[in-house]
Amino acid sequence: MGTETKVFETDVRVRYQETDQMGVVYHANYLVWFEVGRTSLIRELGYTYSDLEKKGIILPVVEVHANYRAPAHYEDELTIRSYVQEMTGSKLVFGYEVYRESDEKMLTTGHSKHIWCSKEMKRINLEKLYPEIYQVLTKAL
Amino acid sequence: MGTETKVFETDVRVRYQETDQMGVVYHANYLVWFEVGRTSLIRELGYTYSDLEKKGIILPVVEVHANYRAPAHYEDELTIRSYVQEMTGSKLVFGYEVYRESDEKMLTTGHSKHIWCSKEMKRINLEKLYPEIYQVLTKAL
Amino acid sequence: MGTETKVFETDVRVRYQETDQMGVVYHANYLVWFEVGRTSLIRELGYTYSDLEKKGIILPVVEVHANYRAPAHYEDELTIRSYVQEMTGSKLVFGYEVYRESDEKMLTTGHSKHIWCSKEMKRINLEKLYPEIYQVLTKAL
Amino acid sequence: MGTETKVFETDVRVRYQETDQMGVVYHANYLVWFEVGRTSLIRELGYTYSDLEKKGIILPVVEVHANYRAPAHYEDELTIRSYVQEMTGSKLVFGYEVYRESDEKMLTTGHSKHIWCSKEMKRINLEKLYPEIYQVLTKAL
Repeated sequence: MGTETKVFETDVRVRYQETDQMGVVYHANYLVWFEVGRTSLIRELGYTYSDLEKKGIILPVVEVHANYRAPAHYEDELTIRSYVQEMTGSKLVFGYEVYRESDEKMLTTGHSKHIWCSKEMKRINLEKLYPEIYQVLTKAL
Repeated sequence: MGTETKVFETDVRVRYQETDQMGVVYHANYLVWFEVGRTSLIRELGYTYSDLEKKGIILPVVEVHANYRAPAHYEDELTIRSYVQEMTGSKLVFGYEVYRESDEKMLTTGHSKHIWCSKEMKRINLEKLYPEIYQVLTKAL
Repeated sequence: MGTETKVFETDVRVRYQETDQMGVVYHANYLVWFEVGRTSLIRELGYTYSDLEKKGIILPVVEVHANYRAPAHYEDELTIRSYVQEMTGSKLVFGYEVYRESDEKMLTTGHSKHIWCSKEMKRINLEKLYPEIYQVLTKAL
Repeated sequence: MGTETKVFETDVRVRYQETDQMGVVYHANYLVWFEVGRTSLIRELGYTYSDLEKKGIILPVVEVHANYRAPAHYEDELTIRSYVQEMTGSKLVFGYEVYRESDEKMLTTGHSKHIWCSKEMKRINLEKLYPEIYQVLTKAL
């Protein structure tokens, strides 16, 4: 993450449902928190992902990656730091860092790669079809 | 459950994801298994719930209840016994019993109440609109 | 819910993961929000459920019930209103109401019944074994 | 995946709970299916992951990656093909491929990297501490 990267923060508190019998958060839940992070990022730019879907634009995940450094526990307050790693008219890559608030420990990092699609799951070029939305999203860069 | 009730069985094996830090299955997962049970029941009658949705019929849950008697553990093989408790043109009530296969212990019982709706979430009378589907489902009674 | 009942409020925002192909929140997620509500209620009383578990006290669910009146959608902001319906030394019943903030619509109501247990899942009497914790919880009544 | 790789197959059927409002399976669920796949792989070798945990051996995820090629839908029958990509005394890397049975389409590939730990989450060398378990697992290679 470069020094100039704009980072958007969202908080979550760990739910009992998100733990497993190892006594820590089950690893797949971080992907859900990544989703919470990017939803929040888009909302802070003035759009909502709900709006995009209503316009017929969807943003399916085509790749996801996570590195787990330390576990989160039930009731921990976490900060999800989300940022745009890369954006073109056809794709969007988000980066994420999950921190625990009490000790500022970085728990997990990751990224997700998405492609802009129509409702029918056909690839589209956002910059050409919706230049005004594309412009708004470039504010995150 | 009366002696004449037709019961449909489905098996699931407990996933690590379904456990929580108490070392047992998190209680909300039984509702997911109830859904697996009723999906399987409808499929065994010759329809699929996917088919119903394609015809524009949906079956949202309006009430759910579960009683937990004993916990399930990771890797346990479970049998979900599902049956139709009540059916009219406007609603459908399923009953469920979840057993562990190794010791035939009954772990959880419950029911879910559903109403027949159109895609637009308006209530419909299945018996009037789709008598042939209604007839097939009565085979479960 | 009586006019004197003490009600504890917690907010959640609907995650994409919590929706299903009906375009609304999958019904089992309300049980997770109920858990978020009672965790928050206990925390506001000065304890945390994590603390209780560290002392060897667990509070498994033995019964859950939910009535669904209207669906929640992705990105909706919801308020979970939680309260103690009944408490004795051996059991605890929480009641819940889930509202959408934008239109103050009540979406779902429910309750969950729990029994006080030791780590070994044996029933205990909280009032006798931990009178100070029992006293704190009575503040919710 | 080399031509000599031993591949272990497990079947799952898509649950309604696993879909999202895009009408397809929510991406994080593939990580759960990967877990179902590696649990099954270990079981077929004669151990169970439950056994390992009872011996005080845990296998937390330190990295996960998934590439999504095509979506799965409600009620689809899927095959999870799991194999050991790499194993040493300190770590274990599983690879996965998820296929739809009806059209044999490959939907998702991925891997997960795990480290052998004690109950206290300290890294251990499985080959030195439990050579007999290590030997059994090498049969997957």
